[in-house]
Amino acid sequence: MPQPVLNILSLIKTPALAKACGQWLKGGRYQLFQVDPSTEPPEPLVQRCGDVDGLLLEEGALEGSFFATLHERGLELPAVLIGPVSGEVLFHGAEVRLPPDQLEQLSYSLDAAVSRFLRTHTPPASSEAQAATPEGWKLSNRLNGRLGYLSIYYKRDPSRFLRNLEAEERSELLDSLKRSYRDLLISYFKNPATANQAIESFVNTAFFADLPITKMVEIHVNLIEEFWKQLMLKGQKNDFLQDYRLALLDVMAHLCEMYRRSIPADVPIVPAPIPEASSPSA
Amino acid sequence: MPQPVLNILSLIKTPALAKACGQWLKGGRYQLFQVDPSTEPPEPLVQRCGDVDGLLLEEGALEGSFFATLHERGLELPAVLIGPVSGEVLFHGAEVRLPPDQLEQLSYSLDAAVSRFLRTHTPPASSEAQAATPEGWKLSNRLNGRLGYLSIYYKRDPSRFLRNLEAEERSELLDSLKRSYRDLLISYFKNPATANQAIESFVNTAFFADLPITKMVEIHVNLIEEFWKQLMLKGQKNDFLQDYRLALLDVMAHLCEMYRRSIPADVPIVPAPIPEASSPSA
Repeated sequence: MPQPVLNILSLIKTPALAKACGQWLKGGRYQLFQVDPSTEPPEPLVQRCGDVDGLLLEEGALEGSFFATLHERGLELPAVLIGPVSGEVLFHGAEVRLPPDQLEQLSYSLDAAVSRFLRTHTPPASSEAQAATPEGWKLSNRLNGRLGYLSIYYKRDPSRFLRNLEAEERSELLDSLKRSYRDLLISYFKNPATANQAIESFVNTAFFADLPITKMVEIHVNLIEEFWKQLMLKGQKNDFLQDYRLALLDVMAHLCEMYRRSIPADVPIVPAPIPEASSPSA
Repeated sequence: MPQPVLNILSLIKTPALAKACGQWLKGGRYQLFQVDPSTEPPEPLVQRCGDVDGLLLEEGALEGSFFATLHERGLELPAVLIGPVSGEVLFHGAEVRLPPDQLEQLSYSLDAAVSRFLRTHTPPASSEAQAATPEGWKLSNRLNGRLGYLSIYYKRDPSRFLRNLEAEERSELLDSLKRSYRDLLISYFKNPATANQAIESFVNTAFFADLPITKMVEIHVNLIEEFWKQLMLKGQKNDFLQDYRLALLDVMAHLCEMYRRSIPADVPIVPAPIPEASSPSA
């Protein structure tokens, strides 16, 4: 099992939620440090943020002024925000949102938060530009170094792949993904910002859990069937359900693009010396 | 520009087709040796096959007995077959079919043929089993060695990526892909075997050309719009066109799975030494 490589500061007010988060990250690559943000004064909290690699946040637990201070000091850390998928951004554009009923995906959300952060905070190539970088870039350099990441995407942890989980954990993760996908379908035609966040959240977990594409299609088909049965029972129209194929297309396009970009940059093919007896007689 | 690393024996009867193939492969990583199969006796032809890395075939140019002989001698080479997408298999299951009006994709089809061959002909891990392998496996070992391929997929050649092509070549490739996609849509609800071959062919080129997913969706949307306009002009029903989203889903699922499997196997995360000043004060 991988040992903790990243220190995460958990600023969660609700005790049950803080406890649950701790349990879902136990034994993984994240070391959690829990602080109740309602009892700690803002300045020491900000100071602590400077010492960690990422934040775990709870919606509503911290004032907007706290995040403003972090921005001012260049402390835009990778962050997972526990709260309903709403389309809103609390801290910064690279934050990852996870609803409290889907905590099974917490480790994948943290992976995604680090990955998104590294992508959006990669320092410019020139050394002159680097000399003038704010704190955030130094931090991303530090993260890059510690994770040894190769491409623009974060290295995945194969011990967290769906197929490598214990049967019980695997089924919990699939149920959790099903809840994420249900949120996604429900918001899809109602609110584009919410839907985008839900897609992002689902795709992140699918990527970091190396979810087979057939499994993803299965989740979609099963949910649509459930919806169909409910509508049948109520005697309502259900022919609009096939419009939801657009949602699946959207999810798949996102995931496919994520995979496409995570293939390490190919180097030009170097001609190999042609071994004897392989020159054609033509 | 990559120098030729693979020798391909072209067994094409139609002179214009043979010439066109030669032109589309010029300067790439494939070295083409052309032989007219209608003038060469079968035995020398089979002999030549033993000396090359792959075959370029024309539908109808060779007898079934020729392929039977290759099978008997364990000469199941990577092969691209120029002919209409029909769902039929001429040589073996890993062959790649390319219609003659889509030759712009020939180099990608050869990439795909080698890749498919390596996937289906990878020798078993145990050395005991290797000692008893037929010719085909020895060949795949030789190909593996020469290409230095890392994962189950063949290394892509970045100089052939869509974005790295000259403007004219880029537009030719996109037009060619559009023709492939049209074949795919036309066969989609008619003949599953043909459709599968068409999907395979399109996805191969998309993968080896590193086609952005948005471009793929664009090809789909433009073709559906064209169909829609044609049906409108003829005063025919067009609401069934949205069923073609299933075709796009199918293509995307194939491509996504291809990308997913082509990411090099991740190694478990090794904990990095934690640098000074990064231990949290919590």
